[in-house]
Amino acid sequence: MAPAQAAAQAADEDGYALWLRYAPLPGAARAQLQAQARTVVRLAPASPTTDAAMAELQRGLAGMLGKAPATGNTVADGALVLARAADLPDTVRSSLALADAGTEGYVLRRTRLQGKNVFLIAANSDIGLLYGSFAWLRAAASGAPLESASAPALKLRVLNHWDNPDRTVERGYAGQSIWDWWALPDIVDARYLDYARANASLGINGTVLNNVNAKAEMLSPAFIAKAAALAGVFRPYGIRVYLSVRFSTPLELKETATADPLDPQVRAWWQREADEIYRAIPDFGGFLVKANSEGQPGPQDYHRTHVDGANMLAAALAPHNGAVMWRAFVYAPGGTKTDDRAKQAYDEFKPFDGRFAPNVLVQVKNGAIDFQPREPFHPLFGAMPRTPLMMEFQITKEYLGFSTDMAYLGPLFQETLAANTHHGSPPLSVADVLQQAPGKLTGMAGVANIGSDRNWSGSHFDQANWYAFGRLAWNPRGDARAIADEWAAQTFSRDTAVRGAVTGMMMVSREAVVNYMTPLGLHHMMGTGHHHGPAPWVDNLERPDWNPVYYHRTARDGIGFDRTATGSNAIAQYAPALAAQLADPRTTPEQVLLWFHHLPWDYRMASGRTLWQELISHYDRGVRQARDMQAQWAALAPAIDARRHAETAARLQRQAANAQLWRDACIAYFQSVSGLPLPAGVAPPAHDLDHYRKLRFPYAPGNG
Amino acid sequence: MAPAQAAAQAADEDGYALWLRYAPLPGAARAQLQAQARTVVRLAPASPTTDAAMAELQRGLAGMLGKAPATGNTVADGALVLARAADLPDTVRSSLALADAGTEGYVLRRTRLQGKNVFLIAANSDIGLLYGSFAWLRAAASGAPLESASAPALKLRVLNHWDNPDRTVERGYAGQSIWDWWALPDIVDARYLDYARANASLGINGTVLNNVNAKAEMLSPAFIAKAAALAGVFRPYGIRVYLSVRFSTPLELKETATADPLDPQVRAWWQREADEIYRAIPDFGGFLVKANSEGQPGPQDYHRTHVDGANMLAAALAPHNGAVMWRAFVYAPGGTKTDDRAKQAYDEFKPFDGRFAPNVLVQVKNGAIDFQPREPFHPLFGAMPRTPLMMEFQITKEYLGFSTDMAYLGPLFQETLAANTHHGSPPLSVADVLQQAPGKLTGMAGVANIGSDRNWSGSHFDQANWYAFGRLAWNPRGDARAIADEWAAQTFSRDTAVRGAVTGMMMVSREAVVNYMTPLGLHHMMGTGHHHGPAPWVDNLERPDWNPVYYHRTARDGIGFDRTATGSNAIAQYAPALAAQLADPRTTPEQVLLWFHHLPWDYRMASGRTLWQELISHYDRGVRQARDMQAQWAALAPAIDARRHAETAARLQRQAANAQLWRDACIAYFQSVSGLPLPAGVAPPAHDLDHYRKLRFPYAPGNG
Repeated sequence: MAPAQAAAQAADEDGYALWLRYAPLPGAARAQLQAQARTVVRLAPASPTTDAAMAELQRGLAGMLGKAPATGNTVADGALVLARAADLPDTVRSSLALADAGTEGYVLRRTRLQGKNVFLIAANSDIGLLYGSFAWLRAAASGAPLESASAPALKLRVLNHWDNPDRTVERGYAGQSIWDWWALPDIVDARYLDYARANASLGINGTVLNNVNAKAEMLSPAFIAKAAALAGVFRPYGIRVYLSVRFSTPLELKETATADPLDPQVRAWWQREADEIYRAIPDFGGFLVKANSEGQPGPQDYHRTHVDGANMLAAALAPHNGAVMWRAFVYAPGGTKTDDRAKQAYDEFKPFDGRFAPNVLVQVKNGAIDFQPREPFHPLFGAMPRTPLMMEFQITKEYLGFSTDMAYLGPLFQETLAANTHHGSPPLSVADVLQQAPGKLTGMAGVANIGSDRNWSGSHFDQANWYAFGRLAWNPRGDARAIADEWAAQTFSRDTAVRGAVTGMMMVSREAVVNYMTPLGLHHMMGTGHHHGPAPWVDNLERPDWNPVYYHRTARDGIGFDRTATGSNAIAQYAPALAAQLADPRTTPEQVLLWFHHLPWDYRMASGRTLWQELISHYDRGVRQARDMQAQWAALAPAIDARRHAETAARLQRQAANAQLWRDACIAYFQSVSGLPLPAGVAPPAHDLDHYRKLRFPYAPGNG
Repeated sequence: MAPAQAAAQAADEDGYALWLRYAPLPGAARAQLQAQARTVVRLAPASPTTDAAMAELQRGLAGMLGKAPATGNTVADGALVLARAADLPDTVRSSLALADAGTEGYVLRRTRLQGKNVFLIAANSDIGLLYGSFAWLRAAASGAPLESASAPALKLRVLNHWDNPDRTVERGYAGQSIWDWWALPDIVDARYLDYARANASLGINGTVLNNVNAKAEMLSPAFIAKAAALAGVFRPYGIRVYLSVRFSTPLELKETATADPLDPQVRAWWQREADEIYRAIPDFGGFLVKANSEGQPGPQDYHRTHVDGANMLAAALAPHNGAVMWRAFVYAPGGTKTDDRAKQAYDEFKPFDGRFAPNVLVQVKNGAIDFQPREPFHPLFGAMPRTPLMMEFQITKEYLGFSTDMAYLGPLFQETLAANTHHGSPPLSVADVLQQAPGKLTGMAGVANIGSDRNWSGSHFDQANWYAFGRLAWNPRGDARAIADEWAAQTFSRDTAVRGAVTGMMMVSREAVVNYMTPLGLHHMMGTGHHHGPAPWVDNLERPDWNPVYYHRTARDGIGFDRTATGSNAIAQYAPALAAQLADPRTTPEQVLLWFHHLPWDYRMASGRTLWQELISHYDRGVRQARDMQAQWAALAPAIDARRHAETAARLQRQAANAQLWRDACIAYFQSVSGLPLPAGVAPPAHDLDHYRKLRFPYAPGNG
């Protein structure tokens, strides 16, 4: 880039730098930081990982201080020192409580070392030093205290890319897949390194490269070589590569006559395949599997079970220390097996508790349907105490307005993680369940929102969802607001007023989406296929549980899905204490009321309003919140670079229109069924229902 | 972007800046240039277009000089002055010969103005001033004389994007479409402005936004609004927006009962549609049409002709000054109508000469098959003197190694444009035919190689093909080597040795591809569908003319397609003098020998070698040339920034492997048919033929 353009872009940011901007610090903060890092000293031996840490510290300090400090290996006053436990004298080491850091954690501490005052980044491992370096830079950039200590609560912190080998991305709203499969392995995009840096800065330590709706060719030698090239870039950053596998791979590659998991030839094929992969990628992470769900092949095709399928793959990976992440999102083709799709995962998996091999995790979506704006936590959490359950969140916003609407997912993630399962004594939260999984494996997965768009995530604010996922995977007890504030400080400004305003918008944004799309526990009301826009009226799809009407059950008499004993009794899948609460609409939280109950329109809410009034007021509130975000952002214009401000303002304008569309279309539809007049003072929808029913969104992205 | 990253990227360029890098000039050149632009003065009135010119001059001078000069409207010594004819005193105006500049040209001249010594950028129009500004900056950046005068030789200089509304790009090898249709019109990517700048810098004045295999929805109000948003960005840069249209659009949108071009309802529909488009885009350029070709609908579906179809659309556009670009690439579905696909366009179009409406251009590919590494010029050029013919080149390298192989297309374009048609007296070159088209319209189209990849074109060197197309569309008599040199100077280095070495590689690169893929006039030997890799053996596709064997006719007795009187007699489509030359292999240029002749393996070439020996020596030469390019590039390492050097080196390594693959596979195949031994000293293919036949390239890009 020519200097003039560099200068132009310093003013106008394009978002590529993510939260790792390392913007120049204001004067006082700069002097303070400078005193903590007059030199950067590596006592740990050189390795690709400590090289990465040193390079990142140089980069970060150069950005924040205006020039990079000298590096060396002589400890002096004011040095920032990278050292493993083994590199430190006993006295210092014993003062650090490094045992708590485990194999990946770190301790950041001011101390005396070799008679000098230094700032120590200490860990038991090279990757701990890298994580510690990122943590130190994060604190410096956001103005947090530099001293801290931390270790990850979960072992596997993994992105799930739903990226296809043709570079389309299922439910991707940030351009094409960043994996340029055709160019790999010979041509390695410089961007892969920045991807590794960004993930390592959060502690993400695994990436599933391809879509769970996987292609057999992904396991061909050509694609293994491509994956190996990526693994080579990621390795210094502590990121292991995983692949989604199609259960019928050997059959489709015509190398076996069946894909039956109990067939010896099939088992031998998978063993050979695993051996082959590990020859190319010695630290390969393992397989992610979507089986017998939405048309994908699986063990049930051969009258075998999930256990048979998962354990076969686990046996192939076990000698290499690889893991199987077997998804519980099952959803049978050709008709529902139960009266309620929400019940299927529990029904299929609960009986297998304790029967999976030790290197299998069952990966469970946060809720029982499919990443809706709000779902109650999945009833499997807490219900399989003898099986490691791994959380699956969706970072990409399939159902929350793609990358065009702002919706900070931190509160959604936190709401699920903090939920009380009422299992155990004392009762376990969902985060507890993840963390206390039996055996050695624990984990959290996030369906990535990363693409080839210059700003990575399609919008600047969608970067925060990647960030929040990573921070919560490291610490599932993290606070969504604190994470937003930390992100805003690094991404936009350390200024208290600015970051406060940004955080305020973020914290309301997801609730705004819930309000204008699916308030009070409504769910699955979106358009068919692309999942954009309101379509509560859809009732003609082949499977009953593909239709919005299946979920909201809007009728003359009322609205909502009865999941109590008088209905599908899905509540019985929860712990008894919780099931008892949910059995009664009066003790069911209003935010999920219609998820569990079918109630008359004149049902009296806590506010004193009828359900009908309350429902409409939520839609109105959502529209208001979207408009408020627009106004709040407009007021931030002086504090944000012009480009990111304009790009975000355009999206917020579109979001306000989208909110209005949802509100109007849903109210028009509900009214057409309920036959009720609008409460006084409520604006009628801009058009009649027919107008909304006729809207089409050709070529909406993300269908994959 | 944080300063540290900006600094890192100044060293490591990512290619986004294209040839508009405006790199700092070395000392002496900087002082010299500074003296020509102490201030930048606009005498022309402010307008979006002169604003763009002023901004570009500021940007360019800031980059090259280290700081932007002041701007103003007071003429002083050393001022760089932007002035239209009307802004100049008579004496100055008359000295400039501005009449020759026409409506789009410019004059760059040192002169006295208001008693001061100034450098004048003069034109008759605002767009002329913008083009002049880019020309002045180009000369300054590449070290060419600043004084010059130029006007475009062709009226329509147009990119054809084969971009689909779902952002896939047919034959695109540079990532996704840059048009983010879903985000438009509300969200306007900052990149669109840089696209406009890059095109205007070359004089490109039109862009067809969507694929010739067009979707009916492109003419829906939603998509017209999206196109209008783009048109708004491009307008100041003199770029008009065009759309490819599907001939059956009104029928598919269910707004008419037929698409018959003589049906009054259909004609009225198109008129309404055109009126609607012009309300949204007052300077809309017009329609590009692929009809009755490769399964696309067209007038022949209703027993009407190309003339009926084109003239119906032309009538709808005429009131608005819009044009129809009707493609001659016809290629009927369900079987060939002639014994030689190469003859079809001429057979269908020649009889219609003089019958198209004045605002129709017939857009003809450079050769009669399909953008092969080398084709003789299309026989329609010169054969339709009463019809404006527009050239269609393919900038994206569908058949020349995608964006992974280096092949500078300047020589290909120039070879076609300079070809002597033997029509007219004195005989016209293809460039003459384009330029001397009857009526008001002349033009050249290039199928774009632009995508969302950071470097725009997939590889750094593919930017040169966009550049060369633009420069030759402005001046079809331009010299490919001079254009390469000018591009290299701006893109890599003004240093004579560096640009010389880069230009040397570029100038050999396309011939290298011809040698290792399709030497001596061979053509259409690539893999099915994706068109990657050698597949001369393919003989089982539904249509005969989909099979490589149809084109090379390799047999025990010899090789090549007999297009003389004893064969398809396609040569009769050329002017008699040329046809006579081509009738005899001895007077046929060897580089297209097997295009026109089927010859025995022991046919004696000019070199004294047999055809068999010569053929093999071409493949060997291609491999050698690819390796030489690698070595030449390696030697340039000290002169090129590390990132672009490494990225190009990786591609050249892959190209060398691809050259070897083509060479080995083709020789193995030819040998299997000819039964001939390899000449002494020739290395046998690395594998047997079966190995090459079994190679598969799943998910190769560009299938669209």
